[in-house]
Amino acid sequence: MSMVNAFSREDFERLDETEKALIARREKVLGPAYRLFYEKPLHIVRGEGVFLYDAAGERYLDAYNNVASLGHCHPRVVEAITRQTALLNTHTRYLHEGIVDYAETLTATFPKALSQVMLTCTGSEANDLAVRIARYVTGGTGIIATELAYHGLTGAVAEFSPSLGESVTLGPHVRTVPAPDSYRHSPEEMMEKFGRDVRAAITDLKRHGIKPAMLITDTIFSSDGIFDGPKGFLKPAVDAIHEAGGLFVADEVQPGFGRTGEAMWGFERHGVLPDMVTIGKPMGNGYPMAGIVLRPEVIAEFGTRARYFNTFGGNPVAAAAGKAVLDTIRIEGLQQNALEVGRYLMNGLKNLSGTYPAVGDVRGSGLFIGVEIVGDPVAKQPDAALTTRIVNGLRERRILISASGPNANVLKIRPPLVFSRENADALVDALGDVMRALQGA
Amino acid sequence: MSMVNAFSREDFERLDETEKALIARREKVLGPAYRLFYEKPLHIVRGEGVFLYDAAGERYLDAYNNVASLGHCHPRVVEAITRQTALLNTHTRYLHEGIVDYAETLTATFPKALSQVMLTCTGSEANDLAVRIARYVTGGTGIIATELAYHGLTGAVAEFSPSLGESVTLGPHVRTVPAPDSYRHSPEEMMEKFGRDVRAAITDLKRHGIKPAMLITDTIFSSDGIFDGPKGFLKPAVDAIHEAGGLFVADEVQPGFGRTGEAMWGFERHGVLPDMVTIGKPMGNGYPMAGIVLRPEVIAEFGTRARYFNTFGGNPVAAAAGKAVLDTIRIEGLQQNALEVGRYLMNGLKNLSGTYPAVGDVRGSGLFIGVEIVGDPVAKQPDAALTTRIVNGLRERRILISASGPNANVLKIRPPLVFSRENADALVDALGDVMRALQGA
Repeated sequence: MSMVNAFSREDFERLDETEKALIARREKVLGPAYRLFYEKPLHIVRGEGVFLYDAAGERYLDAYNNVASLGHCHPRVVEAITRQTALLNTHTRYLHEGIVDYAETLTATFPKALSQVMLTCTGSEANDLAVRIARYVTGGTGIIATELAYHGLTGAVAEFSPSLGESVTLGPHVRTVPAPDSYRHSPEEMMEKFGRDVRAAITDLKRHGIKPAMLITDTIFSSDGIFDGPKGFLKPAVDAIHEAGGLFVADEVQPGFGRTGEAMWGFERHGVLPDMVTIGKPMGNGYPMAGIVLRPEVIAEFGTRARYFNTFGGNPVAAAAGKAVLDTIRIEGLQQNALEVGRYLMNGLKNLSGTYPAVGDVRGSGLFIGVEIVGDPVAKQPDAALTTRIVNGLRERRILISASGPNANVLKIRPPLVFSRENADALVDALGDVMRALQGA
Repeated sequence: MSMVNAFSREDFERLDETEKALIARREKVLGPAYRLFYEKPLHIVRGEGVFLYDAAGERYLDAYNNVASLGHCHPRVVEAITRQTALLNTHTRYLHEGIVDYAETLTATFPKALSQVMLTCTGSEANDLAVRIARYVTGGTGIIATELAYHGLTGAVAEFSPSLGESVTLGPHVRTVPAPDSYRHSPEEMMEKFGRDVRAAITDLKRHGIKPAMLITDTIFSSDGIFDGPKGFLKPAVDAIHEAGGLFVADEVQPGFGRTGEAMWGFERHGVLPDMVTIGKPMGNGYPMAGIVLRPEVIAEFGTRARYFNTFGGNPVAAAAGKAVLDTIRIEGLQQNALEVGRYLMNGLKNLSGTYPAVGDVRGSGLFIGVEIVGDPVAKQPDAALTTRIVNGLRERRILISASGPNANVLKIRPPLVFSRENADALVDALGDVMRALQGA
């Protein structure tokens, strides 16, 4: 969600006439809320695998898009969507084999206790429903999230998504805790600190007469700055919220579906069992779908008494797309690929930090990688301006990434899971080239 | 959203073994929140035009589904989705012709003042965003909606969707007003009453120190009981909310896209200009998409300062599907068809009320029709039990409708816009047959 590399007015003149005209039309009908990536925006017309192609036929390596997680326009997903769209697309109040088959295949990738699914269209809707369920089940309203969390854009979810900035007011029932900063704290500190911070937040909620309903976290912190570890630090925090009568919601919208390489779901890396797991982005490789996987005990009373019907959620096309995604991850061994290529890529990036001190830290798991850019590696002073130049320098070299973190100084590298060693080499070479151009060899 | 015809436990034994097994699997993985239509649920496997086909090959006339508004699996939409899914599906932070082209085509169907679009995935997300914008623009929080409104399922929207029942708590900042009941009040009464009720709600909000942010209404009241008129009654209410510094949001998720026959958008029937119009369900003929069309003045500051990025909203496939829907409505003259077949169908239904006094009232506009079922036509006593028997009786005769209204006694007839006179005859004949079977000739 970082705007570090947003297109600005003064860059307009550098564009081609076609793009200028399209931007003018776009601004007229879409208005000011629609931002474009990069100082020189991209006009993309085609996607295939890890590559995007612009209107002039130039090819870009997509190292950012976690929605097209199997690669753009994966044939198995395209075929599934095409076939089902032509056959039937209706709601879930008729019996249909597709949604049941999909839900069974999906829950089979989770620990046994997480055996039921509710389907929505977006991750925001999934987290919004998680709040409604948590409040219903616990009778509490208090929510604990991290200091720069992003969990979605509905009114109820924006209240605990501080990364949305000052235009959004955090709810009076919301407490935030710092995400563990593995660059500035030791693993021992972090193992202990996160749980202690969550306990303090619970105490503060109670002191204000607010009963805790849930703790929600990414299982690899994304907008907080791409922090993946140390493995296990979530456990004391999860114990704390359970002791306080609240639920733990693992937001797997970004780390889920094998991206971490080490596990299908990020929470598995921590040895914890969430009460609800929210999933989204790569779930349909671009088809709008998301959901919650949960323990039946959590939904039993809510589901019986409350009404929840999502018009498009879990329709036969979504089920077909989702099933094709799960099949492809298994058939193509994409979790294993994320693990292997992720390690290879991280090694390449770490080599750069020897040459360029501004490359202060390389971290992550699988193909979810952050590279923190700093003024110097001792003071660890964030350098947002340099980060912006790097992101745009890579774009000029036809490699697409973005930036994240509280100081907008963390390169966010999150390519499709079909990323190869060759793709990783191209990214590392281009980054080296950009650093050389910006800072000298 | 009525559960009048929900599948119940005791009907289970009447089903085939295949359906029993599928229901058992479904309950295990989807849990208790997923309900099925009808005493004997339908197992639908294929859709084409106005027809749905079950696993045994039986054909059903769909007179209820307002999502597949162009008919199930309309070839033009299937082709558009197929083509674009294989070519490119990514987010709105790259330039793309599709979303701009679609937004221009869409806004061209609105009055000139409503010239900008924001795209979401569901109608709930659209109404949720409308609340955020209205609060930002007005500085108020108060919301006025009708007594049995349904505007969506996110936390913020459920707070002013009383039709969700007692499991949802209305917000302390929410006031409800009765929807005009054209069956029990004269047009003169209604023209005056709705505006007066909204003024009273505004006064009450202010008395509680709550500044009004918005009035939101369906432009044909749906869950309130399918009330369409009299035309113009919205105007005094819209004037009232504007005088109080609030915005008027027209919820066109159900009446929009030509369904009323008389206009492309329901609000046009009332001679009012909304500040925001929320749209959804039929927008992509089943592809998950929705949005807000609004006056640029409303979004100017919110859009510049606040962040709103919807991962799937307005992606190239949604844009292609949406464009195919608008093209089809124009090319096939579906608004005109809704007007003509709607009148024909209403006449047929009105003829039945002469023979069967329980058919107390037939109302609506275009192909959005309500038939109120009563104990007798003088006392106008709602008869929910008979309504349930009628809905299930029609299902046995392979005609699909549902029921609505505060007393669950209004037949909700909302077929695809390609409904023909022959389809209308089939519906009227079957309804006559059901009434005869239930009440004698």
